[in-house]
Amino acid sequence: MTELGVVYQSIERADPAAVERLSRLGVATIHEAQGRLGHMRPYLRPIYKGARTCGTAVTVLAHPGDNWMMHVVAEVAQPGDVVVVGLTSDNTDGMFGDLLATSFMAQGIKGLIIDAGVRDISDLEQMGFPVWSRAISQKGTIKETIGSVNIPVVCGGCLVHPGDVVIADADGVVVVPSAQASKVADMAETREAKEQHKRERLAAGELGLDMYSMRDRLAEAGLRYINQKQQEQEQ
Amino acid sequence: MTELGVVYQSIERADPAAVERLSRLGVATIHEAQGRLGHMRPYLRPIYKGARTCGTAVTVLAHPGDNWMMHVVAEVAQPGDVVVVGLTSDNTDGMFGDLLATSFMAQGIKGLIIDAGVRDISDLEQMGFPVWSRAISQKGTIKETIGSVNIPVVCGGCLVHPGDVVIADADGVVVVPSAQASKVADMAETREAKEQHKRERLAAGELGLDMYSMRDRLAEAGLRYINQKQQEQEQ
Amino acid sequence: MTELGVVYQSIERADPAAVERLSRLGVATIHEAQGRLGHMRPYLRPIYKGARTCGTAVTVLAHPGDNWMMHVVAEVAQPGDVVVVGLTSDNTDGMFGDLLATSFMAQGIKGLIIDAGVRDISDLEQMGFPVWSRAISQKGTIKETIGSVNIPVVCGGCLVHPGDVVIADADGVVVVPSAQASKVADMAETREAKEQHKRERLAAGELGLDMYSMRDRLAEAGLRYINQKQQEQEQ
Amino acid sequence: MTELGVVYQSIERADPAAVERLSRLGVATIHEAQGRLGHMRPYLRPIYKGARTCGTAVTVLAHPGDNWMMHVVAEVAQPGDVVVVGLTSDNTDGMFGDLLATSFMAQGIKGLIIDAGVRDISDLEQMGFPVWSRAISQKGTIKETIGSVNIPVVCGGCLVHPGDVVIADADGVVVVPSAQASKVADMAETREAKEQHKRERLAAGELGLDMYSMRDRLAEAGLRYINQKQQEQEQ
Amino acid sequence: MTELGVVYQSIERADPAAVERLSRLGVATIHEAQGRLGHMRPYLRPIYKGARTCGTAVTVLAHPGDNWMMHVVAEVAQPGDVVVVGLTSDNTDGMFGDLLATSFMAQGIKGLIIDAGVRDISDLEQMGFPVWSRAISQKGTIKETIGSVNIPVVCGGCLVHPGDVVIADADGVVVVPSAQASKVADMAETREAKEQHKRERLAAGELGLDMYSMRDRLAEAGLRYINQKQQEQEQ
Amino acid sequence: MTELGVVYQSIERADPAAVERLSRLGVATIHEAQGRLGHMRPYLRPIYKGARTCGTAVTVLAHPGDNWMMHVVAEVAQPGDVVVVGLTSDNTDGMFGDLLATSFMAQGIKGLIIDAGVRDISDLEQMGFPVWSRAISQKGTIKETIGSVNIPVVCGGCLVHPGDVVIADADGVVVVPSAQASKVADMAETREAKEQHKRERLAAGELGLDMYSMRDRLAEAGLRYINQKQQEQEQ
Repeated sequence: MTELGVVYQSIERADPAAVERLSRLGVATIHEAQGRLGHMRPYLRPIYKGARTCGTAVTVLAHPGDNWMMHVVAEVAQPGDVVVVGLTSDNTDGMFGDLLATSFMAQGIKGLIIDAGVRDISDLEQMGFPVWSRAISQKGTIKETIGSVNIPVVCGGCLVHPGDVVIADADGVVVVPSAQASKVADMAETREAKEQHKRERLAAGELGLDMYSMRDRLAEAGLRYINQKQQEQEQ
Repeated sequence: MTELGVVYQSIERADPAAVERLSRLGVATIHEAQGRLGHMRPYLRPIYKGARTCGTAVTVLAHPGDNWMMHVVAEVAQPGDVVVVGLTSDNTDGMFGDLLATSFMAQGIKGLIIDAGVRDISDLEQMGFPVWSRAISQKGTIKETIGSVNIPVVCGGCLVHPGDVVIADADGVVVVPSAQASKVADMAETREAKEQHKRERLAAGELGLDMYSMRDRLAEAGLRYINQKQQEQEQ
Repeated sequence: MTELGVVYQSIERADPAAVERLSRLGVATIHEAQGRLGHMRPYLRPIYKGARTCGTAVTVLAHPGDNWMMHVVAEVAQPGDVVVVGLTSDNTDGMFGDLLATSFMAQGIKGLIIDAGVRDISDLEQMGFPVWSRAISQKGTIKETIGSVNIPVVCGGCLVHPGDVVIADADGVVVVPSAQASKVADMAETREAKEQHKRERLAAGELGLDMYSMRDRLAEAGLRYINQKQQEQEQ
Repeated sequence: MTELGVVYQSIERADPAAVERLSRLGVATIHEAQGRLGHMRPYLRPIYKGARTCGTAVTVLAHPGDNWMMHVVAEVAQPGDVVVVGLTSDNTDGMFGDLLATSFMAQGIKGLIIDAGVRDISDLEQMGFPVWSRAISQKGTIKETIGSVNIPVVCGGCLVHPGDVVIADADGVVVVPSAQASKVADMAETREAKEQHKRERLAAGELGLDMYSMRDRLAEAGLRYINQKQQEQEQ
Repeated sequence: MTELGVVYQSIERADPAAVERLSRLGVATIHEAQGRLGHMRPYLRPIYKGARTCGTAVTVLAHPGDNWMMHVVAEVAQPGDVVVVGLTSDNTDGMFGDLLATSFMAQGIKGLIIDAGVRDISDLEQMGFPVWSRAISQKGTIKETIGSVNIPVVCGGCLVHPGDVVIADADGVVVVPSAQASKVADMAETREAKEQHKRERLAAGELGLDMYSMRDRLAEAGLRYINQKQQEQEQ
Repeated sequence: MTELGVVYQSIERADPAAVERLSRLGVATIHEAQGRLGHMRPYLRPIYKGARTCGTAVTVLAHPGDNWMMHVVAEVAQPGDVVVVGLTSDNTDGMFGDLLATSFMAQGIKGLIIDAGVRDISDLEQMGFPVWSRAISQKGTIKETIGSVNIPVVCGGCLVHPGDVVIADADGVVVVPSAQASKVADMAETREAKEQHKRERLAAGELGLDMYSMRDRLAEAGLRYINQKQQEQEQ
């Protein structure tokens, strides 16, 4: 339930071993492995090339143009966490910059996913603190209205519970529910392994039509190939 | 947790008395009364003027361009429910039209909130079936991939649990968690009552500055009034 | 091929009988009947409620902010035509208003589909001249650069050839290639007839799940129903 | 210059006679008459059909999600004014509702142009208080940060000075600088008068090509008409 | 005509010599040389810096969220082709990733222009397979509904016929109709040659006003220069 | 006042010493130092990584799709100026490319902020000419309608007067009114100096909650911390 003004200090984080395994896999692979779920919308983009993170979610519900709760979450987070910020209405103001990033890094926080804007992005890149955001904006924020920490939030159109695994790379951000982390890691690793074999066959020139045995199903669906002779007759 | 392929047949619905009380209040009042939470994003708009609904949420998670689960939810819903549809990725295809609306009305469903498109909107208005949607689109959909019914979904950027109260009018859609329905109805009614009195004072020409005693706080915040004489001197 | 600076005076229009039949059917039905093709994007909306048109396309390729070709098409169009305007780049300026509408009506033109803005919309409604546009904008345009008339154009993301049938109502705009007009009218009428029967069954309370025999396919796809007892055990 | 925290109590308003004359003209005509300037972007739309206003601007610079200055402007405005609200960053929260509208009407304010959201729109329509806004949103706002009143603001992408004439109808919002109000009224009236004559000629079937003597310029620009015989030869 | 369910195996490709010449020119130059036509909308962006391609179009019409036809086109394409994908309605799901790219490269395909999303973009960059897309999205797709291959499609708001030349670089994507490829190459080369001379003159400090002899036309259009003395007098 | 067809040749530029000081500070710092004003909207983005500029504004008001005034401003600008371009309606066409950039650089112009599109961006990067634009577009423009030079313009939703200081980096574009340049430089430098100290304390692990003494205000605002024991009891 969405509550305002509460900070849950203790959350159950996903199994560290599963987190570690997921950290070695790509976002697209993980997303596919869990049935094409957990997909944050593509408007959330990394602020620099090569950004990549994986950790357990600590969540923030904030008001547009107000970054007060960002200071609250810094205390509650633990090393290995990724901060995920949802807003009560859409806004692009720059709620996060190099000072907060310095603080987050000092607490061991591994990255930020924020459904709003960030700033000081050149500094953030130099510091190596990865962020996925809705916008880049110099626009500063106030500290007037309290939100919540570690309640379920919506970020990038996706539901995130505290403790879920969040993986982000060039393809975007995916969320794996903590209870499913090991299972999804299994499935994603299996998928990854299979893909290598497929890659080799495709690189050798085999067609997906044959490798995936699609020809019969396509014909059944009514796909009609028209060759040159037919084309000439039709004209 | 977001699961695929499950239909929860039994959900706990909000207290009918609270739903009935909320049905008599405006969306903006309810939203304000629960601390400015439960706000679906303003891109969800009613498909006709005067549309208004209030009921308990039965939820659908669907894939873009696939309305298969809309038929599944028709069976699970009860009279007085409002169907709320979230998608796994953004899409505007017309997932709902007059045939499904006929079926929904026959089952006693009171309205639809859908994070996608709808069609046959002239018919829907004539039938008096209220819908809030992201788009109006003739584009039809397929029935190939299963989603889920009655799991928590994200719709219009807002988290909805099955059984929550959903109220929608010209100002948009607000969600009240089922456990808080009575309390929010209390607060909203109180607010509504107070507003009538304020309305009369403002209509009589009293300024909000005085009625809300804002002058001191504004001065404290540094607001500076510049009168004609000062303006002339400054020029 | 997209050419600039040409006006094709003679085009082959769709069979009038087919146009007449299509004019009695809804956009969603026609779109569905031709295999979910011919769909102009939902950002094109009617400028007033109840707007509806059907006719043969005369096409215009125009430059952003330049409505010169609108005067050229007025001469080339015939009674029963609908003008379809595509642009060489996106723009919302008001390329059409009440004067051009007066001229179009005098030539027997039945409506306008324009991938840009229009103005004088109160007048257009009073005159009963239906328009589907990307925007409503007071912003006037110049007459400096020539485009073309009656070449294939892209409007609302959809390819339109001169002579195609264009049908537009509250659900948007659909394009039927002239060569397929009769066949699509057949299929749409058949569909419409069948829908009436389905509507009655659904209104009587029959579920789509049964009417469309979906239960087996859903089970096969893995859909799992969870009843109250199971839910309790799972908790 | 954009200053924060100031309220100019005295502004020079446009000549009342010019305002009255402009109030009888359409937005598109006025905009055209002043050289296609003063154009607020088309995303600002009236909240109800038939909304129309004309008055002298009193301006507000506000912060996103904060409507404190709306109470300040109510005192400074005079009967016949239209309130114009610009924001320091983009936001759609509902900064204005029926209580503020009651207060505005009591002070004689004739309308609101706001680069943000509004709510209680059914009430506003019943009260007959016209508003052009960026969005309709239930989302409430705070009163924590001061802005300014009666400084130049940007609203809908357009610069507005206090005292300028603001005219709004179904086609959008246009701004006429106060010093030019009489001159623009002259030009707009002339234009309006001429349009009636043109309307009659076009209604009688005369083509714009002839009425505006466009044929030579089109030929000079290289427009090529292709008749049936040519088309056949080209094929 | 837009048909569903057909694959044209033989297409007439633009003259290889013209393709080769166009491959050495920039998109903006080519676009300008053919009269500012063939412009794909700017929302199509390269997925990595330095991406550049030129080839003959093989086209795909696909449904949103369904990449089945991508496997079909892999067989029909020939070395030197660029795959161009249009959709029947807007969607950002990731229809293309590293496996398909491996297959495409093995068939000699030189690039992809897709009016939807792609994923595995880090891999695609490493492989050097250039893509212009509407979005980057991890979201996977299904293989359930057939589209068509090598029919005219709309991509990025632009009409593309099979065999047309497609050139893409940092400035976007331009389409040259196959029949005009040589002529456009001529004009673009001429333009390019002239630009070098202009560049030198401008670099030497000559003004465009003089180089293009604009001063008279500007004066005629009414441009008024106001110097310091005049400004002082006006104040 | 917005006038068409005028070129002010003499403008009062901000104090060069202040410009020089501001050139060494970041956009976010400056924006914050002047009270979070002067913020161009975040849709204006640099066309290449590392772009950075600071100078005095010379302004252009142009029509969509028409870059004629860009040649006029080249003559009026002085070394150290930054050209700021506002449009009379929204448009993304490529109004600026490598030839104009060559001319601008020859005149000593230091950068371009344009509320429209640009092209030849690879060349612009190689030349080291920094641009912040709304879009990247190959689409060329005409030279038919005159605008103005050195009048106040709106760019990126922000009012700019000729002579104002414009600073742009990876975080966007900020405008400092010329009369305030020294004062804002003072405040920004002070802020920058303080930030270094804060950065060190945060890097050492001190929390913002303590450094900014937020705990009391948060408690007063009603923030409630819930520890593990409480959570267990609540369940």
